[in-house]
Amino acid sequence: MRRTLKYVSLLAWLLMIVQTAAGQDRPSFSIGTDEAYDPSVVPAYAGDHQDVYSHIDGSIDQHIRALQRWMRQPSISAQNVGIHEMADMLRDDLRKIGFQESELVATGGHPGVWGYYDAGAERTLLVYMMYDVQPVNPEDWESPPFEAELVENELGRVIMARGATNQKGPERAFLNALESIIAVEGKLPLNVMIAAEGEEELGSPNYARIVDAYEDRMRKADGVLFPMSVQSPDGGTNMLLGVKGILYFEMEARGGPWGGPQTAEIHGSWKAVVDSPTLRLVQALASLTTADGNTIRVPAYYDGIRPPTEEEQQLINGAAAQRDERQARKAAGVERFIDDLEGRDAIVEMLYMPTLNINGIWSGYTGEGVKTILPHIATAKVDSRLPVGLDPDRALEKIRAHLDANGFADIVIRKLSGYPAAQTSVHSELAQAVISVYNKYSQELSIQPRIGGSAPFYQFTERLGLPLVPAGLGYGRGAHAPNEIYLVEPAPGVPIAGLAEIEKAYVDLLFALAGQ
Amino acid sequence: MRRTLKYVSLLAWLLMIVQTAAGQDRPSFSIGTDEAYDPSVVPAYAGDHQDVYSHIDGSIDQHIRALQRWMRQPSISAQNVGIHEMADMLRDDLRKIGFQESELVATGGHPGVWGYYDAGAERTLLVYMMYDVQPVNPEDWESPPFEAELVENELGRVIMARGATNQKGPERAFLNALESIIAVEGKLPLNVMIAAEGEEELGSPNYARIVDAYEDRMRKADGVLFPMSVQSPDGGTNMLLGVKGILYFEMEARGGPWGGPQTAEIHGSWKAVVDSPTLRLVQALASLTTADGNTIRVPAYYDGIRPPTEEEQQLINGAAAQRDERQARKAAGVERFIDDLEGRDAIVEMLYMPTLNINGIWSGYTGEGVKTILPHIATAKVDSRLPVGLDPDRALEKIRAHLDANGFADIVIRKLSGYPAAQTSVHSELAQAVISVYNKYSQELSIQPRIGGSAPFYQFTERLGLPLVPAGLGYGRGAHAPNEIYLVEPAPGVPIAGLAEIEKAYVDLLFALAGQ
Repeated sequence: MRRTLKYVSLLAWLLMIVQTAAGQDRPSFSIGTDEAYDPSVVPAYAGDHQDVYSHIDGSIDQHIRALQRWMRQPSISAQNVGIHEMADMLRDDLRKIGFQESELVATGGHPGVWGYYDAGAERTLLVYMMYDVQPVNPEDWESPPFEAELVENELGRVIMARGATNQKGPERAFLNALESIIAVEGKLPLNVMIAAEGEEELGSPNYARIVDAYEDRMRKADGVLFPMSVQSPDGGTNMLLGVKGILYFEMEARGGPWGGPQTAEIHGSWKAVVDSPTLRLVQALASLTTADGNTIRVPAYYDGIRPPTEEEQQLINGAAAQRDERQARKAAGVERFIDDLEGRDAIVEMLYMPTLNINGIWSGYTGEGVKTILPHIATAKVDSRLPVGLDPDRALEKIRAHLDANGFADIVIRKLSGYPAAQTSVHSELAQAVISVYNKYSQELSIQPRIGGSAPFYQFTERLGLPLVPAGLGYGRGAHAPNEIYLVEPAPGVPIAGLAEIEKAYVDLLFALAGQ
Repeated sequence: MRRTLKYVSLLAWLLMIVQTAAGQDRPSFSIGTDEAYDPSVVPAYAGDHQDVYSHIDGSIDQHIRALQRWMRQPSISAQNVGIHEMADMLRDDLRKIGFQESELVATGGHPGVWGYYDAGAERTLLVYMMYDVQPVNPEDWESPPFEAELVENELGRVIMARGATNQKGPERAFLNALESIIAVEGKLPLNVMIAAEGEEELGSPNYARIVDAYEDRMRKADGVLFPMSVQSPDGGTNMLLGVKGILYFEMEARGGPWGGPQTAEIHGSWKAVVDSPTLRLVQALASLTTADGNTIRVPAYYDGIRPPTEEEQQLINGAAAQRDERQARKAAGVERFIDDLEGRDAIVEMLYMPTLNINGIWSGYTGEGVKTILPHIATAKVDSRLPVGLDPDRALEKIRAHLDANGFADIVIRKLSGYPAAQTSVHSELAQAVISVYNKYSQELSIQPRIGGSAPFYQFTERLGLPLVPAGLGYGRGAHAPNEIYLVEPAPGVPIAGLAEIEKAYVDLLFALAGQ
């Protein structure tokens, strides 16, 4: 009897090891309907604002220069380059446009910018903006990232600059639209609040402070717009109703009482008897994923993800029907997606799975040739994109617990930012108004429940209960990468909106939201 | 019956997984004797060369300046900084000293330097030298690495410079000794060949070319000396009879047909559906070792290591008896060695185990703050120190096969250098002469069969069949690290040889080898 018991527990133990070695799979969400949400049932916006459109056409060179002026002002939040100059530029521009209120907002970090345009109207649109950009490696760029030169490419005339599409181009285009309405009509058809931050690329660590400062007033808004370029090179328009959350942290291994060189690199031959912090970091990072790097092995990490709702399933079906696989791979810059995913599987994976990604890693000698050292410190920048249902603080706790349980208690984690996902319903008034405008300008509208990227929209959707839609015609690419561009004048035959049409669509959206 | 078979094979499979998960252990070599080699049985060198010693004492300021002149000439082989200037300086110095032959040697890489001093003597000493140094991070240094300033520390007056102890200080001290003998005696007591390279820190990829060019003449030598500072801070002298080999390579993961971003970094949110080359490299590196980073999991990697011979076991026993654990940890800059090793276990681990070490790793964004990208390329510099019996090319084949077998065929390996270990017997005439000189100057002599570091001595020991001993009194530290120093004038009570005594011991060694 005892022998049997012993044997059973040995087998259980062996099976446990197998289970641990295999790790858990990513959850698989099935789409239970073939019905697709059809945005063409929403009537195209019927308003006509010819005088404003003409004003835009007549001012387009000046409007392009306004975009360039913003892009030529570096505003790299991670390196604190040009941040205050850019905040001042935004504040001053709002004043010139006619915002009665226009001021910097102290946040403890880079300042926010608040603007309020009182049209004496019933309805109020809140506009979220970011005025910061990602860092650059200038040597990787075909045209200098802060010269914002007009460059001809296969699509037409583009501005090449850091921030071109993420996010200065669409934002300044939106302001050009406001200017044009005021120039022609004397005032805007609805009140506009602008609440901009200079730390989006840092993970928006202080955006809550901006909402704190104006919360009572923001609650009076009817919805939140984030100006964005959402067209594909083929002219299709992609509507986005949500974002993933994010957890961003540094992991560091450093020699100390546990072992390893304590204060500086030592000769590499010591490795025979000295622990390597670099190998420890590599082992700790490797323990977080399967060998292909694509499934997170942190226990319970996939627990709590909210599967696609009925509404979202219909949106996924609609998006999948319009998806061009070649185009999708090209947009990502890859020859294949993981597991050769395509169609709705790829969409569900992108929008409903958390990620574990190494943004950067460094240790020791990284120059040319041979240097034989045992470094005393190694660091990685890691982020995890979080679908609805995964909280960043819980995610961090699970990672910490996993590292501790696997003997990596010495690995230090420094959290740099974290916020949850956000979601808006396609049936909200704001979303319906956006669709009506897209239906006026664009042939093919594809709606996704959310994107794989992150923005602190939860401040509006979860905290204030407001619908939020990132919206705007136009095309850009290269966000967070070299050679970022924003299309301002499409070549003949290219079915994408240029700057003038982008601005006209914003004009229409403002009137549509005002019920005019 | 079939059921039983099935069950047995399931259990076998489970056990195999357990075995794989546990990995192989490092071999353990037992020392089968308590006998220790006793160098004090070798009579101290009895010759007396007062006139030469006096000449050294009278010229010591000039001799220090000769060291500083060498150290102030940067010669960073990895970055091709100052290499040709340093080669010229060495060649010219040999001429001035009186070498009849003194010339640069084309190698395909950085030039070698050959010198021959014909004393018309029976015996010939071949001297291996390296004139290159490791790269530096100047901001880590207390005194600029190429100013070679005299600095006072707890040991006395030291020169702080890159190359101070590795290897310009000891080498130029040896030449000072030659100069002094010639100044007093008119000529050296034996013929001296010098065969210097400028690529030791690159793994000596072309040293064979230098040996090729002078092989017939080198074979006439009676032994090979490598000038080195081998004293400990407590004055003990450490004699070294061999070196490990080395394999140094880069491992790189890059997006391509297998997956991942193809040409540049992309937005980090793509990770949900895109492979990460950085995670791939991390997983590949992690697969090479156990989770603690201290045991190599490449199959058969430990096969073929030659265990300590009877002679080496006696040397290990002698070294262990004299070992100061606190001092050993301090020398490494650590609070503890792996597995809290000490005594002869630590010595055997250091000298008989191969290492797997990450000298550097880099990918993606490594600056301040948050940047959310999925990098398209990740690189690591890896080295493996090889005890006698492990060939660098076989080691590389095993690593490649292991990566391929574990799904990492896409990981590129670029070999940067590789050569095997080298070993000399303590009973060789050269080693016995060195011991006799140490016994004259030093209270406590500790002999190790080899060191954990690497040098291309196999060219002499394996190829030419010559004994080789790295030898010289004196103390230095910080090789391959910041704040490298070489002690030139010990403080009162510090039992280490200063520059004058270092040179006098070299004088004695030359006469001892000449049988005088």
